[in-house]
Amino acid sequence: MGRIGDTEPGNVAERIIREVYTLCRENRAGELADYIPELAAVEPDEFSLCVATSDGHVYRAGNADTVFTIQSISKPLTYGLALADHGVEAVARKIDVEPSGEPFNEISLDPLTERPRNPMINAGAITSASLIRGADQAERFERLRRCYSTYAGRELTLNEDVYASEARTGHRNRAIGHMLRSFDIVEGDPDLAVDLYFRQCSINVTSRDLALMAATLANNGVNPLTRQRALAPELVERVLSVMTSCGMYDGAGDWIAEVGLPAKSGVGGGVLAVLPGQIGIAVHSPRLDSHGNSVRGVQACRELSRTLELHFMHVTRAGRSAIRTSFTVADMQSRQRRNAAEMATLATYGNRARIYELHGDLLFAGAETAVREIAEHGTDLEALVVDLRRVDEVSDVARRMIDAQHAELAERGCQAAVVDPGGLLGHTTSALTPTAESGRVFTDLDVALEWCEQVLLDRHCTDERSPETVTLTTHPLLAALPADQLERVTATLEPRTHARGETIVRRGDPATGIFLILAGRVSNLIADGTGVTHRISTLSAGMTFGEMTTLTGGTALGDIRADTAVRLAVLSPAAFDALTASAPQLKSTLLERLAAGAYAQLATASRSVALRGAVL
Amino acid sequence: MGRIGDTEPGNVAERIIREVYTLCRENRAGELADYIPELAAVEPDEFSLCVATSDGHVYRAGNADTVFTIQSISKPLTYGLALADHGVEAVARKIDVEPSGEPFNEISLDPLTERPRNPMINAGAITSASLIRGADQAERFERLRRCYSTYAGRELTLNEDVYASEARTGHRNRAIGHMLRSFDIVEGDPDLAVDLYFRQCSINVTSRDLALMAATLANNGVNPLTRQRALAPELVERVLSVMTSCGMYDGAGDWIAEVGLPAKSGVGGGVLAVLPGQIGIAVHSPRLDSHGNSVRGVQACRELSRTLELHFMHVTRAGRSAIRTSFTVADMQSRQRRNAAEMATLATYGNRARIYELHGDLLFAGAETAVREIAEHGTDLEALVVDLRRVDEVSDVARRMIDAQHAELAERGCQAAVVDPGGLLGHTTSALTPTAESGRVFTDLDVALEWCEQVLLDRHCTDERSPETVTLTTHPLLAALPADQLERVTATLEPRTHARGETIVRRGDPATGIFLILAGRVSNLIADGTGVTHRISTLSAGMTFGEMTTLTGGTALGDIRADTAVRLAVLSPAAFDALTASAPQLKSTLLERLAAGAYAQLATASRSVALRGAVL
Repeated sequence: MGRIGDTEPGNVAERIIREVYTLCRENRAGELADYIPELAAVEPDEFSLCVATSDGHVYRAGNADTVFTIQSISKPLTYGLALADHGVEAVARKIDVEPSGEPFNEISLDPLTERPRNPMINAGAITSASLIRGADQAERFERLRRCYSTYAGRELTLNEDVYASEARTGHRNRAIGHMLRSFDIVEGDPDLAVDLYFRQCSINVTSRDLALMAATLANNGVNPLTRQRALAPELVERVLSVMTSCGMYDGAGDWIAEVGLPAKSGVGGGVLAVLPGQIGIAVHSPRLDSHGNSVRGVQACRELSRTLELHFMHVTRAGRSAIRTSFTVADMQSRQRRNAAEMATLATYGNRARIYELHGDLLFAGAETAVREIAEHGTDLEALVVDLRRVDEVSDVARRMIDAQHAELAERGCQAAVVDPGGLLGHTTSALTPTAESGRVFTDLDVALEWCEQVLLDRHCTDERSPETVTLTTHPLLAALPADQLERVTATLEPRTHARGETIVRRGDPATGIFLILAGRVSNLIADGTGVTHRISTLSAGMTFGEMTTLTGGTALGDIRADTAVRLAVLSPAAFDALTASAPQLKSTLLERLAAGAYAQLATASRSVALRGAVL
Repeated sequence: MGRIGDTEPGNVAERIIREVYTLCRENRAGELADYIPELAAVEPDEFSLCVATSDGHVYRAGNADTVFTIQSISKPLTYGLALADHGVEAVARKIDVEPSGEPFNEISLDPLTERPRNPMINAGAITSASLIRGADQAERFERLRRCYSTYAGRELTLNEDVYASEARTGHRNRAIGHMLRSFDIVEGDPDLAVDLYFRQCSINVTSRDLALMAATLANNGVNPLTRQRALAPELVERVLSVMTSCGMYDGAGDWIAEVGLPAKSGVGGGVLAVLPGQIGIAVHSPRLDSHGNSVRGVQACRELSRTLELHFMHVTRAGRSAIRTSFTVADMQSRQRRNAAEMATLATYGNRARIYELHGDLLFAGAETAVREIAEHGTDLEALVVDLRRVDEVSDVARRMIDAQHAELAERGCQAAVVDPGGLLGHTTSALTPTAESGRVFTDLDVALEWCEQVLLDRHCTDERSPETVTLTTHPLLAALPADQLERVTATLEPRTHARGETIVRRGDPATGIFLILAGRVSNLIADGTGVTHRISTLSAGMTFGEMTTLTGGTALGDIRADTAVRLAVLSPAAFDALTASAPQLKSTLLERLAAGAYAQLATASRSVALRGAVL
């Protein structure tokens, strides 16, 4: 057999899991637990292996529906519920979190702290059980059973035989209970705590259940199939920490070095392992090694960790800056069309407005590098945009770092904004500084670009801005026409007005004429395959639309919508056609001007495609 | 004082580190190590804190240049060199990796394995030292000193006084050495091993050095400033694992629960902690707690971990699919312009070619979800492209999963390709299957799209493909013109030919005339701000270029390059202008056709902008 999963096609994940299963099935080392007859009576070569993804897909090898008792794998779950019932501090006063280096059923406490060394040995687990809230024993057990069921995503039940057997023979655990009572670690009736512990260990599970429990822990405490929360995220962190240091009895160091996953085993032959944020693994095979861990369980986890590269100290790459790219308004402009004076201003001053596109998860290290890079290179900026559209998650510290940097930039006169359609920074409007202009939050890069342009134009282009209105004689399509030609055209133009928000041309409309904008702004909107609408361009007084359908006889590709109240003059298709015979010179002039306009738009679109190809 | 780092603007990282420093400086608990006079003589309230990023930036608070001896922080470094000298297996036969639960200077071995319990207690560290290769003691020490210096990125030196003092008083360590010799764990002269251990502990460092050592471990073994490798990545993983379980003496469980970073402390007052892949932390403060760990060191690491969210079980979000988006050739086409029959074919069959864009790091969990999703939805595909341009790193298992899926797709008749300009999959040409067509690797999405189109057109559009050549009378610009007009135009056209690779029009060229393509293919190339060239469109027989500069009087935005040998007919600007007076009807017809062509291009560009806005 070659390297696992190396050869034929097919689902590699499935194949690797099957191959690990086949490899480990050969291993018949180890002995059954035999302290109660029910555990000694199981089929010793029973074996199943499940991997559950954080979207709830379960890969299975072997009989994943074989029922066995959860045994010690219950310990982290009960510990988690105790933490939820009392808080981390209160539980820490009862149970330490140190690896013990001693057998799991030792009747002793840490000699210095006089507490159970950790929640994964029996003394700590019985203490956890004693902390479960409930009016009576039945309610306490029902709370535990329901909690476990939430992890597994189905209703789990008690194995009465195993429970009866545990209860009949569990003198050592009763001794531990009374020892705990004598040190006031267990405060109520120790027999009740021990009884609850026997019950929790006797809950029936399958390896599919354990894999989903592990995936729930991997998924920050939420069951990936039912979406029900089993444990708060901060408690998941603590439970996984304790599983890391103490989960595999006194084989913890070897486990960390070889497997590198928080895990818990049980004498029923189960092993549960968690790759936080990613997957849950479960194995069931009843033969145990000298530590009390399933032989095949340990071997299968080791093989999976190696083959699937799951070890938590495995780093595929070292940290990198969260900045994916940056560019200035001189490199790329918004879809708001500008006049020549404005274009010239943006060409000159465009490098004073910079857009930083971040990506990945913004944890401390990535955010730190990004903020430092922005601080180093951003000293001459007048406007700055941080684009978070490609960021997946923002940690709390990263959020504060970005907010603080924006406030600081605002103080020295650089206006800052974010593109944050997902609300990752947690503020729809920012209150970083008293000025309303800083700390703006946009949902769209194009609008943010337009805002940057506005900031620069307001400062550097005060005289020659695009006119708010034009007349028929100053509209560029008609400007400087001979008087007779101008008169001939204007006679055929129809005036139109639209209120803000009205749709002037609808996608699919046939040739609707050539529209000259005399006042106001309109946007050209196109929907993509998924139904999301994109602004292709924004047009204002002195510009023209509708020429495309009129010239090509096609239908409108998108909607034209009034962004403000607009005043238009419309040259109907019939009137335009009539010019062919009656005034070919005039028509030629208009066509030349329209074509020039089309090419100017095409040039902008081409630049945008080139840059967006590189940048976006 | 409010929450750390919560209030004023400024560099938040710097401020948090300063605030943690200020908070911990108040803490005067703990005692100096006093087993040698040199350690007892230091300034007890000395305190510094450094955080080094994986690009080598070092944040400092306090006096980061104070020199102290490295002491036990040398242990993981020497262990790493021993692993490099002998391999993991051989070292594992000498030293276990289990937390000991006992004081670090215990003169005992594990009673079962008869080996030191781990490399972080003195017995294990002396064993590591005994494994360092070298012809004599001087060479062995020099190898250690150079190794440590590579971690720190500067030449470190021995503190002769501390070494002399350690050597004079180190009876307990000599006892450990002889015990190790008696069990054949140390094989040579035990006094030499102990002497080497005394020397390694007596190397002078600063907290800046320790922070860079930690950052080197975080950075997979490469010093972030010098780019020199100190340790192989797979050994870094093992060293960090052992630091996790055993680095903080018998406070390991608490450390994992509260701090959650692999770390090592020394009796010189140093603490070194690592966030794999991200940052290195170092603290120096000589007062020690009962475990022998620096009091302020532990406190500062706990505060930093909490505030900067560094705990290794902290998951900001659960796993997600590596598929960022997907679309078909029906949604977005390449920049190769197509004729009507081809457009119709692609509209009908375009959904049989799908592009999957992946993102993030492709570890097992993400790749698994992606491969599963592709397998579920891709059953009807005839061509499939996996776009890796947004992927940062690909783990080995993910690579095999993608390769295997592509081989499987090829077997059932779906041609598969990747866009992988960075060579992440490790093959410039793939040898997945015997057919050369499958497993293609492209560096550009547009070329991959064109390839998909080709696959579909070859299967579904065999009759009506774009002609290889056109004549003047069948070129769409001139087709169906009245005979007199056609004659008038053709009389003014100049024939031109270009060899493959020639530039026909250069960026910045003034009006060069209207070029009719009669045979061959040309590409329109535009360079972005960074100098990268993008293909805007590819034109073939029956298409036209150059009209934009001719009509607008502007200059060419990009280059037009011959992709094959091309045959052209050129209408010069002068000849075109002359038509205004001599043949206004003809000019009007040509303008109308050119404008329609421009608008058709604009429509394509707009759709592309819309889709790329959403998709790319």
